[in-house]
Amino acid sequence: MRRIAVLTSGGDAPGMNAAIRGVVRCANNQDMEVYGIERGYDGLIKGDIRRMDSRSVSDIIQRGGTILKTARCPEFNTPEGIRKGYEVLRAYGIEGLIVIGGDGSFRGMRDLCTNHKMACVGIPGTIDNDLAYTDFTLGFDTAVNTVLDAINKIRDTMTSHDRACIIEVMGRHCGDIAVYSGLAGGAESIVVPEIPFDIDAICDKMRRNIIKGKASDIIVLAEGVCDCNTLKNMIQEKVDITIRTVKLGYIQRGGTPSMADRVLAARCADRAVNLLKNDIGGRVVGVREGAVIDDDITEALDMERKVNDELYRIASLLSL
Amino acid sequence: MRRIAVLTSGGDAPGMNAAIRGVVRCANNQDMEVYGIERGYDGLIKGDIRRMDSRSVSDIIQRGGTILKTARCPEFNTPEGIRKGYEVLRAYGIEGLIVIGGDGSFRGMRDLCTNHKMACVGIPGTIDNDLAYTDFTLGFDTAVNTVLDAINKIRDTMTSHDRACIIEVMGRHCGDIAVYSGLAGGAESIVVPEIPFDIDAICDKMRRNIIKGKASDIIVLAEGVCDCNTLKNMIQEKVDITIRTVKLGYIQRGGTPSMADRVLAARCADRAVNLLKNDIGGRVVGVREGAVIDDDITEALDMERKVNDELYRIASLLSL
Amino acid sequence: MRRIAVLTSGGDAPGMNAAIRGVVRCANNQDMEVYGIERGYDGLIKGDIRRMDSRSVSDIIQRGGTILKTARCPEFNTPEGIRKGYEVLRAYGIEGLIVIGGDGSFRGMRDLCTNHKMACVGIPGTIDNDLAYTDFTLGFDTAVNTVLDAINKIRDTMTSHDRACIIEVMGRHCGDIAVYSGLAGGAESIVVPEIPFDIDAICDKMRRNIIKGKASDIIVLAEGVCDCNTLKNMIQEKVDITIRTVKLGYIQRGGTPSMADRVLAARCADRAVNLLKNDIGGRVVGVREGAVIDDDITEALDMERKVNDELYRIASLLSL
Amino acid sequence: MRRIAVLTSGGDAPGMNAAIRGVVRCANNQDMEVYGIERGYDGLIKGDIRRMDSRSVSDIIQRGGTILKTARCPEFNTPEGIRKGYEVLRAYGIEGLIVIGGDGSFRGMRDLCTNHKMACVGIPGTIDNDLAYTDFTLGFDTAVNTVLDAINKIRDTMTSHDRACIIEVMGRHCGDIAVYSGLAGGAESIVVPEIPFDIDAICDKMRRNIIKGKASDIIVLAEGVCDCNTLKNMIQEKVDITIRTVKLGYIQRGGTPSMADRVLAARCADRAVNLLKNDIGGRVVGVREGAVIDDDITEALDMERKVNDELYRIASLLSL
Repeated sequence: MRRIAVLTSGGDAPGMNAAIRGVVRCANNQDMEVYGIERGYDGLIKGDIRRMDSRSVSDIIQRGGTILKTARCPEFNTPEGIRKGYEVLRAYGIEGLIVIGGDGSFRGMRDLCTNHKMACVGIPGTIDNDLAYTDFTLGFDTAVNTVLDAINKIRDTMTSHDRACIIEVMGRHCGDIAVYSGLAGGAESIVVPEIPFDIDAICDKMRRNIIKGKASDIIVLAEGVCDCNTLKNMIQEKVDITIRTVKLGYIQRGGTPSMADRVLAARCADRAVNLLKNDIGGRVVGVREGAVIDDDITEALDMERKVNDELYRIASLLSL
Repeated sequence: MRRIAVLTSGGDAPGMNAAIRGVVRCANNQDMEVYGIERGYDGLIKGDIRRMDSRSVSDIIQRGGTILKTARCPEFNTPEGIRKGYEVLRAYGIEGLIVIGGDGSFRGMRDLCTNHKMACVGIPGTIDNDLAYTDFTLGFDTAVNTVLDAINKIRDTMTSHDRACIIEVMGRHCGDIAVYSGLAGGAESIVVPEIPFDIDAICDKMRRNIIKGKASDIIVLAEGVCDCNTLKNMIQEKVDITIRTVKLGYIQRGGTPSMADRVLAARCADRAVNLLKNDIGGRVVGVREGAVIDDDITEALDMERKVNDELYRIASLLSL
Repeated sequence: MRRIAVLTSGGDAPGMNAAIRGVVRCANNQDMEVYGIERGYDGLIKGDIRRMDSRSVSDIIQRGGTILKTARCPEFNTPEGIRKGYEVLRAYGIEGLIVIGGDGSFRGMRDLCTNHKMACVGIPGTIDNDLAYTDFTLGFDTAVNTVLDAINKIRDTMTSHDRACIIEVMGRHCGDIAVYSGLAGGAESIVVPEIPFDIDAICDKMRRNIIKGKASDIIVLAEGVCDCNTLKNMIQEKVDITIRTVKLGYIQRGGTPSMADRVLAARCADRAVNLLKNDIGGRVVGVREGAVIDDDITEALDMERKVNDELYRIASLLSL
Repeated sequence: MRRIAVLTSGGDAPGMNAAIRGVVRCANNQDMEVYGIERGYDGLIKGDIRRMDSRSVSDIIQRGGTILKTARCPEFNTPEGIRKGYEVLRAYGIEGLIVIGGDGSFRGMRDLCTNHKMACVGIPGTIDNDLAYTDFTLGFDTAVNTVLDAINKIRDTMTSHDRACIIEVMGRHCGDIAVYSGLAGGAESIVVPEIPFDIDAICDKMRRNIIKGKASDIIVLAEGVCDCNTLKNMIQEKVDITIRTVKLGYIQRGGTPSMADRVLAARCADRAVNLLKNDIGGRVVGVREGAVIDDDITEALDMERKVNDELYRIASLLSL
């Protein structure tokens, strides 16, 4: 394979730029040309494509977001949209495509592979860590460290006022941001979509802590469970306490990528380029048990993500 | 004067601990004893008082929040509550009191000075920078840098998605956090309570930017104007654009104090202790035109805060 | 087992406090008492021991360094010193000991296990990541992120001046800090103790970059290879270029622990306490292929650490 | 005036990019064209000049270093070099020049003003804060906060080991970085070029602290006094203690500019552009007692900088 393209799709994540840089430089090392596609599948369909070289990815490794931008593209959910995208790639003589994105982006990519025999490889880029086939996704480590910094700041003020606080973090279906940041931040309770939460257990713990003289509990809540004000009202009905809420929102998506996300980006880019070099498509790369792996995309999308029971259990222990 | 006390009151602010440390160490240098009062006026009335020495303020200069804690105390708004507080101070043989807090805390302190001839000195501790007599308050510099970091992160993701965003920051009556962070963060519009905002001007600027190919405007909004969703709806009625919102909330209050806040804390503590050493009360300390100053508390509370026109003007220029 | 002790030994590392907190809280959950030993083996021999409970580890999860302090203790390298330590533990009725430290600390622990049948478990605490049996040690992730932040700052100034710079980082025998930070920071060359370095290759790359118009190469050097000024002179003899040097030194050891280090601390503490609960000693815990593991201490100390070839190779690719 | 140019010269400083952005946008608002000159006076002489517009300064406000780069230029110390520079400006029809730099850069600018009647205005850009006519220079606030972060990290490890440490910071003639960071960081001693240091006083304080059980003193040393190893040896000759040293070096120059530096950059740029708009040259802008000011360049360069006695005195008090 001599000419490949790369795009970012879905929600942006820290480390996407490091991955783009990795793709371009690894491909150049293998004597392959790289084209960058702007705004994901939308730019693909519209032909927003430009040649990239080693220079065009200088000074981006440390930057949040994605220089290729990203956008939603409902049209790519249709066979017609996919066909248009395929034809654009053909028109440029592009033989392989690397997609950096999450679950939804990979589904589009799978259809492009299946319907049109285009060699595609996916790199997992999403802060949610909600892909079952890989232990970690690009942006997750950075996002959790951002949340952790917020928990530190919020704890300062909550401890000073003896106030409890619910911190709502990202994660619609996957509670990993909540579990990792809650464990690392010493949260008193963690509420995630995968595990039914026991409002009485949360309230009991708060009452016990109030009796011990500590009213500044921190509860980390994944957005997929409910809104922070809903949970607040549920607790306030049962415990006589005023609770503050913070919804962290978009600060979780941005920022300079952490070391772990940059290293993961480089490793995934290296593997993705090598697959295409060997004319292998229909794969998604990731990391499992510390090693870079690649899986068949259809199988990968069928796997079921499980919550990290070990961390959830330890977090419960440590907050007693 | 041989024995003084210190308390923190109102919302906590980064630099309060540095100020407590400064008070204790400066007083010890002047052979004065220092007592720390827990939870503001509430702890004063309840007699939650402990002796502090140089060691009890070790390793706190870099910490957010306040080791003396803070709380609301409606009782101290009554003459009876103030009398109780006064009697507790007398019972401990305390001759002077340093109050680290904002506007409301200073009003209580003024009444304690006036009604009972207790020598009191105020140190301005509030992130809002809403005290007219001083150019800066403890915590303001740190809070604005925290907001700035959030703007940087949010801009990453908004630029990647070509999305506009309204960022709601603290400031009920005073727009300084919004003005300073908006100017420093390169915000496209800044909306503050002191200056009537022109919804059409904001919308015009957005339309012009969209035409120029840039749909990722950042609007910084002080909470005293309205809720971020209210402003979002006002704009979306007039411009065909999807706007995101982030309400930064309590992360603005915490965190390691910046250099400027620690230096301000040390300077104010030094001045406050020297006033009490010379049996001078009824004063608030601060900084004006770069120099530490102290003012009569009644006069200080009567001054009217003005928005920083120069910065607001320059921010408008630079965002064109 | 009903009563255990914990100490930190060797160079301090971010995450040691999180591990101490984890040990205390996990043990309390298992109805075991915990004693904290000050200043490592030195405090053990001198009997600097105090009871710890859940409260004594409040508010330490986010702090760098170690609240138990650490010190060198040549006496513990002798059978007599080890015997003294053992007798102190016996005098307190302590049945098990958790040692948080690195290679040297583990050797002392092994001798305590072997000579006196004391049940000991080691938790890997060292920023160097130089223990062969575990993929990561406490403090490594934080230290590399600190180095990365320094590389970002130094690159700003070097790019502005078109200057090359050698950044010397920690790592006497193990180049992991250099490899991970160099890869993540986009360093042009990485020089580590495990791989003989080719001065001509480094110089060739510099010359090629100068010709391309880029004179601001960053070289990351592990201290175990040579001093940064030695390498600078070697290069300057061959290339007509002025090179700056920065030796990062002790800033690499401190700072708030990252999410990864706090999570690793919690997981290791949980395992270590469970081993002792089941009267199992002579083990070191760690993480391999993503899972928490424990190994026989003698076997663990005999393993040989290998440099991460994959990352070193990718770093070379990406810097071309 | 319709056409101006801007360059950065001398050591780079955080906030230079914010100042370039401010110059370009303020000038555009006044219907003036702006040209950017690369690599300071060297690029001026060589004609490395390009037109800049609002877009060319997008997304740089938060970046360290200088996008215009900077370089030494001995040739510009000669009348011949200055004349060449002047002729390049004339050739481009440039009527006014804004120089962002420090003392040396301003001397070149003064000669350009004096010899050739070119209207020049200086903006103070140097982390050292060593210009007498302005209270603060661009980059100083950021640099001191970087040093403060390093002191925090180093204190973690020094406290854990009961070790003293000398931290060498920038400042050849001006000790401001040392004084501000030492006060804010709670350093036990501060050594600066402007105040003769008393080695016996430093040693006495160390001995007193050791007796009190605290051997982890932090000494902040400005590089202009001596090397950190020299001071270390002086102390170790008198006190039986092992002292560590850290020379922070180039990390002090880089990094995202702080709020204060970005606001200062915007204010100075606004004033500088307004001066040129009104055909006024031969001025340097800055900030005094909180207000933006401009001074005659010759007078400004003749002023003598004084150390901040107030802060030095308070730092001594607080470290007792």
